[in-house]
Amino acid sequence: MELLNSLQWRYATKKYNNTVKVAEDKVMQIIEAARMAPTSSGLQPFEMILIKNQELKEKLVPVVMNQSQIKDSSHVLVFAAWDAYTEERIDAVFKNVETIRELTPGSTDDYKASIKGNFNSLTKDQQFQHAARQAYIAFGMAIAAAAELRVDASPMEGFYNDQLDEVLGLDKKGLKSVTILALGERDHENDWLLPMKKVRFALEDILTVIE
Amino acid sequence: MELLNSLQWRYATKKYNNTVKVAEDKVMQIIEAARMAPTSSGLQPFEMILIKNQELKEKLVPVVMNQSQIKDSSHVLVFAAWDAYTEERIDAVFKNVETIRELTPGSTDDYKASIKGNFNSLTKDQQFQHAARQAYIAFGMAIAAAAELRVDASPMEGFYNDQLDEVLGLDKKGLKSVTILALGERDHENDWLLPMKKVRFALEDILTVIE
Repeated sequence: MELLNSLQWRYATKKYNNTVKVAEDKVMQIIEAARMAPTSSGLQPFEMILIKNQELKEKLVPVVMNQSQIKDSSHVLVFAAWDAYTEERIDAVFKNVETIRELTPGSTDDYKASIKGNFNSLTKDQQFQHAARQAYIAFGMAIAAAAELRVDASPMEGFYNDQLDEVLGLDKKGLKSVTILALGERDHENDWLLPMKKVRFALEDILTVIE
Repeated sequence: MELLNSLQWRYATKKYNNTVKVAEDKVMQIIEAARMAPTSSGLQPFEMILIKNQELKEKLVPVVMNQSQIKDSSHVLVFAAWDAYTEERIDAVFKNVETIRELTPGSTDDYKASIKGNFNSLTKDQQFQHAARQAYIAFGMAIAAAAELRVDASPMEGFYNDQLDEVLGLDKKGLKSVTILALGERDHENDWLLPMKKVRFALEDILTVIE
């Protein structure tokens, strides 16, 4: 299966060749894979911010605890989850469902109401945690897409989320950053991780089969 | 890109043909994709439980709020995250790293200590939430793999986690269920969702580009 080949090829790139720019059509295919990711009840509770601006990438170096990938990579893709499942957001989802599927307006109202009820029973932080997990499914799809396109990528979670939110103005949009994917081309000669073997637990250590 | 074709092909199967069993080698490739998923610091803080036993699948019907996929699908794959990042677990990860990469024993000690320090500053629930997100990356990879193999799948999050943990004895293993992927073959004639158009937000609604 091509996906398994791609997952073997990829690694969390530590050092990029900062002279190489990834082709825009590849970046857009990676974003498209994230957009097509399934999410709970189809709510798609996240947005993406694609940073191409070099000045901004440099400014983010301390925000990501000095990981050089943020400035040396070609593109930086930030995943930001909804801070809450508001009525307005859920309404927008179902308006979209009714439009695309050419349903009678209001025909999704019962389902919509039950979803609103479910989220209303959660705290705002629980809602955000739920949304963050959905963003991680899309994050996984973007990582898989990058690997299939042989675009190097660095999944990055170690950063000051509040600082990133402020720099990108995410709080004003009701979003909270959850993870980052840097995209570029590996520095073939100077990335210490590149020659290292991939490490995973053995299958028998992480899988239980109930026959 | 094949991944985008596969993501267009897939949908959250609502009704399975319960006479069809998915080939074991395909199921194992789906699990392998999850095993190869990247995780924060390579910690792989989750396990998978593959349920083939029909009696158990029937027993789980009320646990998943009567969603029929649990019993009519061919295989049920449960993703369960670590309930905490314990010292023992982190030690096991780095023992594995040193073995596979043939490093001098103890050479990862400084990095290991810094990771332990990071997790020690989090509450147990924060540790679990962090682990759960990693499991979702693997969940995404499994969904992508199933689609590439043209195996139908249903991502399922709506279930009583505590009940599932108890039935599977996960609490004794320091695990908490986070999500389920049912695998099988769609009922081509009786799945109401199959003829429906896929719904996603338009790209411009979920992407901000900073040039």
